[in-house]
Formats: sequence, C-alpha cells, structure tokens
Amino acid sequence: MKILGIDPGLGRCGFGLIETTTRAGAKALDFGVVTTTVDAPLPSRLKELYDSLNEVFDQTRPDLVAVEKLFFAKNITTGIAVAEARGVVLLVAEQNKVKVFEYTPNEIKKSLTGYGAATKTQMQELVRVHLGLEEKPKPDDAADALAAAITCAFLYRTSEEEKYKFSNSRK
Amino acid sequence: MKILGIDPGLGRCGFGLIETTTRAGAKALDFGVVTTTVDAPLPSRLKELYDSLNEVFDQTRPDLVAVEKLFFAKNITTGIAVAEARGVVLLVAEQNKVKVFEYTPNEIKKSLTGYGAATKTQMQELVRVHLGLEEKPKPDDAADALAAAITCAFLYRTSEEEKYKFSNSRK
Repeated sequence: MKILGIDPGLGRCGFGLIETTTRAGAKALDFGVVTTTVDAPLPSRLKELYDSLNEVFDQTRPDLVAVEKLFFAKNITTGIAVAEARGVVLLVAEQNKVKVFEYTPNEIKKSLTGYGAATKTQMQELVRVHLGLEEKPKPDDAADALAAAITCAFLYRTSEEEKYKFSNSRK
Repeated sequence: MKILGIDPGLGRCGFGLIETTTRAGAKALDFGVVTTTVDAPLPSRLKELYDSLNEVFDQTRPDLVAVEKLFFAKNITTGIAVAEARGVVLLVAEQNKVKVFEYTPNEIKKSLTGYGAATKTQMQELVRVHLGLEEKPKPDDAADALAAAITCAFLYRTSEEEKYKFSNSRK
C-alpha cells in the first residue's frame, strides 16, 4: 500500500511517499517539498500549489493520503496561510479520489514515539529508523510529511486488524 | 464593470454580483449562498465548494472579485474552516483569471459608513441603499458578499482616479 504524507504550507509544502512492506515496516519511495513564489499574490501562489500537488499525485499515485492537521499555537498570520494551503491540499486529494486521513502533530508524535514529547531532531531520527534510511530525510517539511505517512500506515493497519478481529469474533 | 463579492465559508459561502453604473452608483445583478453538506468529510465539502463556485463564475463572469479577509477574533476552529474555504475561493478566482481584491471586515465597514462601528443590521441597510434594493438582501452571507463588492467598486474607482490625476499632473 502506498501512502502519501503531506505537511501543508503555502511557501513550502512537504510530501513523502512510503510503501508498507512487512507487517511493521515501510520504506520511503519519494519525498520532497513543493514551493511557491514568495512575492507572488496569494491567489497565484495557491494555484502554483494546486498545480504542483496535482503533479505529485500524478507521479506517486497513492492509495491513501495523510495530512497534518493544523495546530494553532505559534503565529495566527502564518496559521491562516497554512489553513488556506490546507484547503487546496484537501481539494486536490479529493479530486484525485484518494481517501484522506488527518492527524494532529501530537497524534503523529505519539504514534512514532509512544509519548507526545519528542523533539524535532528525535522525530527526524525516528522517521529515518522507521524507514530504514541511511540519513535523516531533508528538508524538515519532507520529514514531517513522512512522519504523517508512517502514522497513517500504523493507525490504518491497526484499525483494519481491529475490524478483522471483530468480524472473526462474530463468526 | 461587474464585481463579484465573496464572503468565504465552508458551510455557507455568500456571493453577490454588482455592476457599477454611474460614477457613484452600482446595482445588484445576483446574490445568494452556496452551501456544502454538513456531515460530509472535509475534503468532499471543499470539492463541493470548488464546483459550486466554478458554476458561480461561469454564470456571473465578473471583471473583478472582492473577497473578505479573515478576521480571527471569535472561534479558532471556525476560523480554520473559513481559511480552508478561503484557500479554495482564491484558487477558483485565479483559475478563472479574475483579479482578486481582499478587504478586512473593518475596511468594508469603513468604506460603506466612514467609520468602522456599524452594526450588522446597519450594514445590511447600507447595502440595500447603495444598491437601490427594495428590501435588505438575504441571507446575511449574501449581504456581506455584496458589501465586499461595493467596497471594491468604491476603492478601485478611487485608485483609478488617483492614477489618472497623477498621470495628468505629470504632463
């Protein structure tokens, strides 16, 4: 199963494609960042993002998409721009007919570490180990996107197993 | 000149089309609200919004678009949903190749009243008077969209006159 993680952003939007392999494992197929022109008007940047994300979907053809949910702690102006970009991300996923799962930064941390308190560097190291990469994936936005994809792989598999157990127990 | 005002929202997105007539005047050509299915998943609602707005653009063919800017005072969760919808609104305008102007609620109030303290009811009455309507435009989201369009008509005209004065003064 191929899962595309996305870390939404207007200036930099991270993406990371993983493929689930063994029961617990996954490998990275592709990751990177799509960017938009900093001094272009907002509507034009959103269209750049839309076009680039459609290319990513065309090239990666994921079975599921995992998108980081917005967490509003730092800066409201940045938060609004991220939410506007997120609207475009979710639209593109829907238009490409791929099911979307959304996770908060805390849910992602917890699924990779068992507790929600990992630092950014620790998270990147965990992503590296989970995917068997030689080096930490770069840049940060791509690493965050891969972390969302790993979370989806883990939680989706767990929910499928629960369903299976449940349907078996009723036989 | 035809100006389409838009009051972004996920559940209800207001629109209002005006045509500038005499130097100070404008008339309403069309207004209403596009809605999305309340209990549908977010990506699907954003696609509903995208499709409906494209229909509005097809039917109204505006020369300019005026979009209300997000103002984050009330509820952060609602605010995020509005920003996600706004991302889709701005994308649709750009894809339809129409220039977008954005105004904060305060800028809209000031352009219609000269001060920023009008109530919602006063604003609706002002929209009615500006457009020579017999009754207040309904629902609220459509009235807000018309107010954004009136603001654009006024500020755009003023900026064009400034440009004209400026280029004449240099001759």
